[in-house]
Amino acid sequence: MAEFDLVLRDARIGTASDLFRGDIGVRNGRIAALGDGLGKGAEEIDARGRLVLPGGIDAHCHLDQPTGDGSEMADDFASGTLSALCGGTTTVIPFACQVKGRGLREAVEDYHRRADGKAVIDYAFHLIVADPSAGVLGQELPALIADGYTSFKIYMTYDELKLSDRQILDVLALARRERAMTMVHAENADMIGWLTGQLELAGKTAPKFHAVAHARIAEREATHRAISLAELVDVPVLIVHVSGREAVEHIARAQAQGLRVLAETCPQYLFLTADDLDLPGNEGARCVCSPPPRDKANQQAIWTGLANGTFSVFSSDHAPFRMNDPKGKLVCGPAAPFSRIPNGIPGVETRLALLLSEGVLKGRITLHQFVALTATNPARIYGLAGRKGSIAIGADADLVLWSTDRSVRIANARLHHNVDYTPYEGIEVTAWPDTVIAGGEILVQAGEPTGAAVKGRGRFLRCDRPVEGAPA
Amino acid sequence: MAEFDLVLRDARIGTASDLFRGDIGVRNGRIAALGDGLGKGAEEIDARGRLVLPGGIDAHCHLDQPTGDGSEMADDFASGTLSALCGGTTTVIPFACQVKGRGLREAVEDYHRRADGKAVIDYAFHLIVADPSAGVLGQELPALIADGYTSFKIYMTYDELKLSDRQILDVLALARRERAMTMVHAENADMIGWLTGQLELAGKTAPKFHAVAHARIAEREATHRAISLAELVDVPVLIVHVSGREAVEHIARAQAQGLRVLAETCPQYLFLTADDLDLPGNEGARCVCSPPPRDKANQQAIWTGLANGTFSVFSSDHAPFRMNDPKGKLVCGPAAPFSRIPNGIPGVETRLALLLSEGVLKGRITLHQFVALTATNPARIYGLAGRKGSIAIGADADLVLWSTDRSVRIANARLHHNVDYTPYEGIEVTAWPDTVIAGGEILVQAGEPTGAAVKGRGRFLRCDRPVEGAPA
Amino acid sequence: MAEFDLVLRDARIGTASDLFRGDIGVRNGRIAALGDGLGKGAEEIDARGRLVLPGGIDAHCHLDQPTGDGSEMADDFASGTLSALCGGTTTVIPFACQVKGRGLREAVEDYHRRADGKAVIDYAFHLIVADPSAGVLGQELPALIADGYTSFKIYMTYDELKLSDRQILDVLALARRERAMTMVHAENADMIGWLTGQLELAGKTAPKFHAVAHARIAEREATHRAISLAELVDVPVLIVHVSGREAVEHIARAQAQGLRVLAETCPQYLFLTADDLDLPGNEGARCVCSPPPRDKANQQAIWTGLANGTFSVFSSDHAPFRMNDPKGKLVCGPAAPFSRIPNGIPGVETRLALLLSEGVLKGRITLHQFVALTATNPARIYGLAGRKGSIAIGADADLVLWSTDRSVRIANARLHHNVDYTPYEGIEVTAWPDTVIAGGEILVQAGEPTGAAVKGRGRFLRCDRPVEGAPA
Amino acid sequence: MAEFDLVLRDARIGTASDLFRGDIGVRNGRIAALGDGLGKGAEEIDARGRLVLPGGIDAHCHLDQPTGDGSEMADDFASGTLSALCGGTTTVIPFACQVKGRGLREAVEDYHRRADGKAVIDYAFHLIVADPSAGVLGQELPALIADGYTSFKIYMTYDELKLSDRQILDVLALARRERAMTMVHAENADMIGWLTGQLELAGKTAPKFHAVAHARIAEREATHRAISLAELVDVPVLIVHVSGREAVEHIARAQAQGLRVLAETCPQYLFLTADDLDLPGNEGARCVCSPPPRDKANQQAIWTGLANGTFSVFSSDHAPFRMNDPKGKLVCGPAAPFSRIPNGIPGVETRLALLLSEGVLKGRITLHQFVALTATNPARIYGLAGRKGSIAIGADADLVLWSTDRSVRIANARLHHNVDYTPYEGIEVTAWPDTVIAGGEILVQAGEPTGAAVKGRGRFLRCDRPVEGAPA
Repeated sequence: MAEFDLVLRDARIGTASDLFRGDIGVRNGRIAALGDGLGKGAEEIDARGRLVLPGGIDAHCHLDQPTGDGSEMADDFASGTLSALCGGTTTVIPFACQVKGRGLREAVEDYHRRADGKAVIDYAFHLIVADPSAGVLGQELPALIADGYTSFKIYMTYDELKLSDRQILDVLALARRERAMTMVHAENADMIGWLTGQLELAGKTAPKFHAVAHARIAEREATHRAISLAELVDVPVLIVHVSGREAVEHIARAQAQGLRVLAETCPQYLFLTADDLDLPGNEGARCVCSPPPRDKANQQAIWTGLANGTFSVFSSDHAPFRMNDPKGKLVCGPAAPFSRIPNGIPGVETRLALLLSEGVLKGRITLHQFVALTATNPARIYGLAGRKGSIAIGADADLVLWSTDRSVRIANARLHHNVDYTPYEGIEVTAWPDTVIAGGEILVQAGEPTGAAVKGRGRFLRCDRPVEGAPA
Repeated sequence: MAEFDLVLRDARIGTASDLFRGDIGVRNGRIAALGDGLGKGAEEIDARGRLVLPGGIDAHCHLDQPTGDGSEMADDFASGTLSALCGGTTTVIPFACQVKGRGLREAVEDYHRRADGKAVIDYAFHLIVADPSAGVLGQELPALIADGYTSFKIYMTYDELKLSDRQILDVLALARRERAMTMVHAENADMIGWLTGQLELAGKTAPKFHAVAHARIAEREATHRAISLAELVDVPVLIVHVSGREAVEHIARAQAQGLRVLAETCPQYLFLTADDLDLPGNEGARCVCSPPPRDKANQQAIWTGLANGTFSVFSSDHAPFRMNDPKGKLVCGPAAPFSRIPNGIPGVETRLALLLSEGVLKGRITLHQFVALTATNPARIYGLAGRKGSIAIGADADLVLWSTDRSVRIANARLHHNVDYTPYEGIEVTAWPDTVIAGGEILVQAGEPTGAAVKGRGRFLRCDRPVEGAPA
Repeated sequence: MAEFDLVLRDARIGTASDLFRGDIGVRNGRIAALGDGLGKGAEEIDARGRLVLPGGIDAHCHLDQPTGDGSEMADDFASGTLSALCGGTTTVIPFACQVKGRGLREAVEDYHRRADGKAVIDYAFHLIVADPSAGVLGQELPALIADGYTSFKIYMTYDELKLSDRQILDVLALARRERAMTMVHAENADMIGWLTGQLELAGKTAPKFHAVAHARIAEREATHRAISLAELVDVPVLIVHVSGREAVEHIARAQAQGLRVLAETCPQYLFLTADDLDLPGNEGARCVCSPPPRDKANQQAIWTGLANGTFSVFSSDHAPFRMNDPKGKLVCGPAAPFSRIPNGIPGVETRLALLLSEGVLKGRITLHQFVALTATNPARIYGLAGRKGSIAIGADADLVLWSTDRSVRIANARLHHNVDYTPYEGIEVTAWPDTVIAGGEILVQAGEPTGAAVKGRGRFLRCDRPVEGAPA
Repeated sequence: MAEFDLVLRDARIGTASDLFRGDIGVRNGRIAALGDGLGKGAEEIDARGRLVLPGGIDAHCHLDQPTGDGSEMADDFASGTLSALCGGTTTVIPFACQVKGRGLREAVEDYHRRADGKAVIDYAFHLIVADPSAGVLGQELPALIADGYTSFKIYMTYDELKLSDRQILDVLALARRERAMTMVHAENADMIGWLTGQLELAGKTAPKFHAVAHARIAEREATHRAISLAELVDVPVLIVHVSGREAVEHIARAQAQGLRVLAETCPQYLFLTADDLDLPGNEGARCVCSPPPRDKANQQAIWTGLANGTFSVFSSDHAPFRMNDPKGKLVCGPAAPFSRIPNGIPGVETRLALLLSEGVLKGRITLHQFVALTATNPARIYGLAGRKGSIAIGADADLVLWSTDRSVRIANARLHHNVDYTPYEGIEVTAWPDTVIAGGEILVQAGEPTGAAVKGRGRFLRCDRPVEGAPA
């Protein structure tokens, strides 16, 4: 009789700390054993020395999120999580977003309805606190944190989402009391608004001016302010989707002073530049996101921040809008002014391959850093440690067997999201997920989903309170 | 029949990335399996949920090292490695030191003679390059690196050891060519000499003036210079035993700029201050080391650097001299001028307990950081990854079962080195190694060495070339 | 017949660049000649080698300014300018403050009425822009700048004055177009409000908690934000009354990068500390101002910034409120909570003596720096160069003959303002104005006003547009 | 009878602090009066509102300095000072250079012999301390300082000149005791030597490789070291001829921390780049100097440092070698390897016009900063204040009437030095000295020397001890 439900045999197993050769024994969806010559599995995969890493956690993605402006996201939980899965991600943490004037619990319930029966992989929810009323801070949020929604994002820009400094302080104080994790979208709304006004006055409304309006200085200012607010309250804070050198410098300086300031970045800040917003026709609209891609020098600053540990998390910020959809990117046709183009690009499926290929295989970061940034650190920061994000006894058997011996050209035709483009079209990578296992089930084989990758198999994960502000 | 030679049952197992509950199965001295409910072991230890961590690597210690000035180290490989073992360290990397005008190979052979038949635990050698002649750089050093001596230390101070900037550049260029790791003792010799002269002129020769002579600015200057020299050559460098805030700042700034500058610190910079050199009588002489302990604010800067990742390695810099020994610390009795007191203090046995107790258990760093700093990172940086420094399949079964539920007062009487004092006498810690296993053998039980902890069982380890400058 | 109306004979004359011995010849209220052995004056003063410096410009003081909260300033233009004069200041630039919802021109006219017939010395007006409506930015402000009101102050705190970031950008853009100078009160209103709320909840309302509520981090944050906003618009900006080390660091960093960020500090940040707000009884209320005094280490940072050129201007921020006045500091008696105490302290008379004595005579700054900080730079920055702020041919004969050979104990009884205390009571200084001349008239002799120091003799000065952002 | 020997009538007079219209009255070679409508002069110049500034002080130039390597400087005191004069400089401070193993007094006497009877303008001497023996430090140097040689330069590079850190400390300690000013040539000799060796091995010996060998990092390292050494001794220090951004950053950081670190830069770092060393044929050899010119970005960093006050002094570092001279730049013909080309370029005549034209007239710095950098600050720093460097009563009547209304193309044919090229050939400037007056004598008219500009008229100036480390 088989000792295990599944055994991965003779893999080169990588974690945030180790790289070793051995077998992985799975039982009841969990990793039951690691070893050299483990007993038989009911099912076996012969890894033959190929690389097996923990399934990724995409800790920043937007799926089926109501936008409030009439646009609609291209991916619901079904297509979004299938796309994630095929890219090697086995856990997503999208956002349940409060509408101003309404409750958070209501947003969470709505969001559960959107996820239930659809998610192919496991998921947790971040909250978005858009209206920190007395009721939200006093009752709803503490109760939600106790229920396993232990992280929330706040915005310093976007009229319908942004909080005042005073509100941010109130939210941070609650995060401190409740030991929750606060994520901050750090851009100065007034700077962006003022620049947008100046550009519109000058008739400069093409997509490329989005990158001008969202100037690096707007990110720098808000980053310093967010750090200062968190320092005042003495609570960890995580700056999401950092794009510019000056913001990185502020974060690194805060870390050097001993503040628990964490940071996340995304593929668009490594592989795109503002020039991509100036592609011919209206192709530039495809790459509109906030903060926008910068330039080569800033890409290098982001790579440096990944290599030296300034960043703890690498996420996709997947925010899927179709180009050819009345509610998508091109809200009013090919001449849409940049200020009306939905902010966001898809990326949940390409995140890991891009970083593994261009980061690890080209020697910019180590394999251990890759695992930490894409899986282990997010698990630790968002309260999933022990269950997700590593290859360790007792953890869910979420595993990716990587192909690293051939070149793959990224093409939207191959991707599984419901977006009609990928900003990374044409990039050659030398890593791609061959086999993806979640909860011990083989959901992807030879790069394509198996019959087991069914809607509704993903479970909701209640997050623990993060035990530490500053992961290794 | 037993499946394993030894099983640690139901341990709380910590690595640089994970913390999980499970069993550890040992076969042929190596970790053969990790799992939940592993098969039987010929021998079993019931860990009952107690913490098991990788055995420590002390990557900076001096054992039986000829000093050149007639003083003699108190610990040879027998007493030194026994002391290390009892403190939870299962690998040491002491220094084979070249004498100016003589060869490096000769130093290595001499040092092997000192280690052979004496070492209780496994050991590798760093080299000390004191005379980088054409022959050393052209033949001896490349050959030694190929033979498994892949790291070397150079000095910017001490007349008999220090290199000129030109010589440092030559050594760094060789390190780059040969992919070896260079460690630097960074203090400005001329500043120290000038200050010593000024102090002696003023009759200020008590031990406390050692800390005045070795001013923080001498460390800061040399640290910046070492970083600059390595930047010029474009090669990683590791600054050892960092003590002062300004040096930490230079290192952090270099890291922020993307330079591969690594750093090490030691317990004396966390637990001692310059005031300890001013203890009554001649007790101050006990704490003379270089760089010297600083003050509380600088201790805090070192803690911050441990917590935010500026430091990759935490070593003891064990340099054992007896107080009551004509060749020991008090070279000419109680009134020895500071400039004649041997630089160095013991610490190989207390290193881990101090950091686990005051760092992890008091919440200053995470358990994962502790493991990384004391075991996993040194293994990776010095070419022992896969064999030492972690709990992973195929690695040597070097394991420590920690007692963390009672307070232990550090007392020299309990220690196993051959020094007649410990600078940490009287400090209460809440962590102490209960059981220490090396190569699968139980060498320490209930805090005391077993019969298996015999001289000569330790093997020499040939180091790989470090594959990466910047460990996670 | 006399060649000059007045000759100062044999003075030691100091300017921002020179120190020389000679005579000063005055004709028609202006400096007509400097020389060695000038012709006769109708009136002569034998300076006998004593120090003569330019009359001070106090570029930051509040006189008879409506406060909006019912409190009333203790000094009108009569008492305020007399006090200034007796302290060696011959030009003041107080603030004409817009009321939200009303016009700027109206504020200017009201303020002229307050000054007319009362001012003893010459004066210009800064504007305070509290409501940058389209009309204000489009018409009123450009017209006022053209009329000689070329500088304005904006606030980042105080509910009735503070501007949003967007409004600040609009004001800065106007300053750029019109080549006007923008002064910024940089404190984060929300941080202060939040801290005040926390303190009040805890019952901590004594004056000393004012310094807690106005935390250094609130100044640091707002300073960085003000710099960022000005950098975005690419226009010079002047941060007023800087108090804390971190704000100084942000300013110095901006200057190092080539931004034209100017800065001002005041005596309260050199001579008072937060401890002064904790004096027995309700004496602490006397020292309530914003930003508040900090501590010794921050005083040192301010001194360093004066010595190394980070600061260009040294003003009093004289904001006079009586302790024993129903509308004064103690709005509701001895137990006034700090949030109800008017922010502001007197200092227009003591500013120069304190800085000359403790700065120049104690060797912290040079005599030339003193003149630049207190007279020449403000003239240049605020459009009065050539007329005020130096001893040069054609400039108004505003001169101070300093006594520097005896110790004077500052006592409110000797001062000429209409406030019932001085925060500097009891400080010994070794500099005090002996003779003060304005427009060639001897208005102070032996430290006391002469009959010529009559109300209404001061003229209004229309300021030029500042020609340079960064004075030497 | 005339009241003055000479009157400049109706000039626009600029100083480091003021700009005013008036007359300058000269008596006995000194400025006797400034005024509006001064009495008659025996001689009069009608300035008609044209700009009159203080004669420049070139505080860093080499004239007839023995080089030790057989090369010979192209300019002796006659040609060098005439060239300076025609460029608007009325005081030079060249270097009396000690030869290792010999005395300083001897060098001074030799140097007086070279200057006597030759200098057209006044001059003081800096010393170069190349061998700080006990006798030099104990007797010669204190005596020389007392005799008016109050500043000395030390080198961190060049085999025949460089001091060890220990020697630098000894010299700085003496500077502190004697209140003298230490100038430092800050480049790391070993880095340069190592790079030179690498380049030579690779056959890269063309002039352009001089700039590679003298890498910015060599300047950065030595600058930080020099600052550290001065900080240890607690004495002001002046870093000469700063060329690179990183050195500027270290200096600015030191100043921000309150250290009295002064800095000088030169025209070659504003107007030349390393590309100029790669001119066709062997023209690149013309621009070989140390540190070498860098690139456009570094030029901008130097401009920023001039504008924000990081630099106090702007000198020429005139070091004249002929191209076509067996002992000149091309020591062994057109294929001279860079390491054998004498380091130094001419510039004593073009310094002021370049900075006035490109700095002041193009708005990069103010007129006051120009005067401070080129005249007032050097006077103050090197002990000539009151006599030289400003237009003030009692100062020597050293005045330049500038032509600023027409464009002048710099051409070596117009210059008065004895060098066969200028590195600035072809640059258009809009400022050139029209009339130069020294000691009240008109020595240049319409840009050409008058008959009064005779050899030997220049006097030796004994310098005071500098009274301040940090001039305004």
